[in-house]
Amino acid sequence: LEPTEQALVDGIRARRPRALARAITLVESTRHDHQLRATRVLDALLAHTGHSIRVGITGSPGAGKSTFIEALGLYLIAQGHRVAVLAVDPTSSRSGGSILGDKTRMQRLAQASNTFIRPSPSGGALGGVAEKTREAMLFCEAAGFDVMLVETVGVGQSETAVAGMVDVFVLLQMPHAGDDLQAIKRGIIELADLVVITKADIDPKAAELAQQQFAGALSMLRSVSPCWRTPVLAVSALASLRDAARLECSGTGTGSTTRLAAGAGIDEFWASIERYREVTTAAGELQAKRQRQAVEWMWTLIDSGLRSRFRHHPKVQHDLESVSRAVAAGSLTPAAAACRLLGHLE
Amino acid sequence: LEPTEQALVDGIRARRPRALARAITLVESTRHDHQLRATRVLDALLAHTGHSIRVGITGSPGAGKSTFIEALGLYLIAQGHRVAVLAVDPTSSRSGGSILGDKTRMQRLAQASNTFIRPSPSGGALGGVAEKTREAMLFCEAAGFDVMLVETVGVGQSETAVAGMVDVFVLLQMPHAGDDLQAIKRGIIELADLVVITKADIDPKAAELAQQQFAGALSMLRSVSPCWRTPVLAVSALASLRDAARLECSGTGTGSTTRLAAGAGIDEFWASIERYREVTTAAGELQAKRQRQAVEWMWTLIDSGLRSRFRHHPKVQHDLESVSRAVAAGSLTPAAAACRLLGHLE
Repeated sequence: LEPTEQALVDGIRARRPRALARAITLVESTRHDHQLRATRVLDALLAHTGHSIRVGITGSPGAGKSTFIEALGLYLIAQGHRVAVLAVDPTSSRSGGSILGDKTRMQRLAQASNTFIRPSPSGGALGGVAEKTREAMLFCEAAGFDVMLVETVGVGQSETAVAGMVDVFVLLQMPHAGDDLQAIKRGIIELADLVVITKADIDPKAAELAQQQFAGALSMLRSVSPCWRTPVLAVSALASLRDAARLECSGTGTGSTTRLAAGAGIDEFWASIERYREVTTAAGELQAKRQRQAVEWMWTLIDSGLRSRFRHHPKVQHDLESVSRAVAAGSLTPAAAACRLLGHLE
Repeated sequence: LEPTEQALVDGIRARRPRALARAITLVESTRHDHQLRATRVLDALLAHTGHSIRVGITGSPGAGKSTFIEALGLYLIAQGHRVAVLAVDPTSSRSGGSILGDKTRMQRLAQASNTFIRPSPSGGALGGVAEKTREAMLFCEAAGFDVMLVETVGVGQSETAVAGMVDVFVLLQMPHAGDDLQAIKRGIIELADLVVITKADIDPKAAELAQQQFAGALSMLRSVSPCWRTPVLAVSALASLRDAARLECSGTGTGSTTRLAAGAGIDEFWASIERYREVTTAAGELQAKRQRQAVEWMWTLIDSGLRSRFRHHPKVQHDLESVSRAVAAGSLTPAAAACRLLGHLE
């Protein structure tokens, strides 16, 4: 028995996890009628969206994303926040799995209250995956979550997609020079509003060195925002988790968790995020960024829709393969080919 | 009096510079009838295209592109090659000028026989500029030029556009660490099949250091081709030009020019280009690259054509502004907006 649209709207507003999960499943469905229902539910909720801080988190495999997100999530819950974790993983459709798997990666966070963890939807191209994540984010906001953590692996265009849907984009980086270069090389550092050197407890000297190197590199790059310079922090998420666990066992409670976690850098990290929000909000940049992101995403969807209609046009379908072959063989110029295929639309 | 299409075809095949220049002017025109004529001329010449080696050259302003291209061009002419120099400069439409200006930048090369220098067309978006350069390249090939040097400044997406139309892409780099980082950061190094440290004569030690740094950085990046690792060469184009000038004055002639220029690295550079062509041709990679480039360019033109038709659709024109405003304001989701606008096409 499927819940009515109104039941979903009410359930999400009442912060019921099941209603939220169902609405996201609906929006992830490829069935047209499901899409229509999801759109109507979302429209009814739209006035209640937009009130969270949207944080994108990227890093190569092994950079410690799961540990960082779990430590950050537990820290935020202790502070009274409600935290949703979403994932964009373009590889999950291939591997059949998901980077968030069956929530075994973040067991303690998954068991905590005031959290919602949603693995990456399987199937679909990147555009599709990222599209669902956008809608999922809006549903989560309507359900009263005030912190969105959108995680992505450093594969393909997923970082650009995630950077295009969040307020602040964070790059996690292990303290190794080779890894640094990868992020610089792949242009990811340009997207980052914040850089975090992870696993700072394992080799504090290496972490400090990496921090300096990154800060040096960043000082030579032009800043995207006139009011924000990307800071480089060192964090030990594992130390933060250990402290939290110790306190839980000894029953010392929430307040001290925060105090101890301070040493691991999680609180300094979150203070940076809040400072980012304050500064860019005051300058009007954050609102402008969200408006720009929404319009850009509309155009991405329009382009992909136009391409799909074009490919499905009977005359184009009939002609495309032979024209493509002629272009590859050099017997037809790309311009002439484009002209001929576009002519079929008339 | 405009020449007939057949006169242009014959003139280009007879290697007359004027016919070549006129055909390129025709293809650069925005008038529809000019476009049609240019397309017919190109179609008639298509069988005579594709026989050159297409070399893309990029570098920041000040990296020494003009001097390098002039030295290389003179060297190649001395070797019996026929050299065409084309430019892609997305800034020229704004400044009203062109990076090749009135050919004053490469005076000696411009005066040499067996060369054709074509400044960047003014006006038009990047897509347009790059499109004309592609067609211009084909006309030059039909006119018997066997080396294409396609120059671009390091601005916006011009490097990607040029890398997408040449066989081998060369990055010119001054011997300064900050500059190195820029190229690495902007992802340009990933496009490069060859890196040249310029102005090696000014500070040989700095050049050697830059060469080592770049080689080190490249060794950590994954190679695009299984059969080619991007080499880093040091060249002094100015020394090469000085040598050539001295020999011209003393009347020693061509052979010695080559010998002396050797010390400046130009001959080593060209040997690398030829090795690249041999290796990638033997592996079948070069042909595959050209086929891929042509098909990708066809899709770029199709996408831009679809977008343009969409924007000019009466119903879309009528609705686009208010829908965009609603999306920016957050009262309409990008997905719903795209759906509504695409619906106008039905």
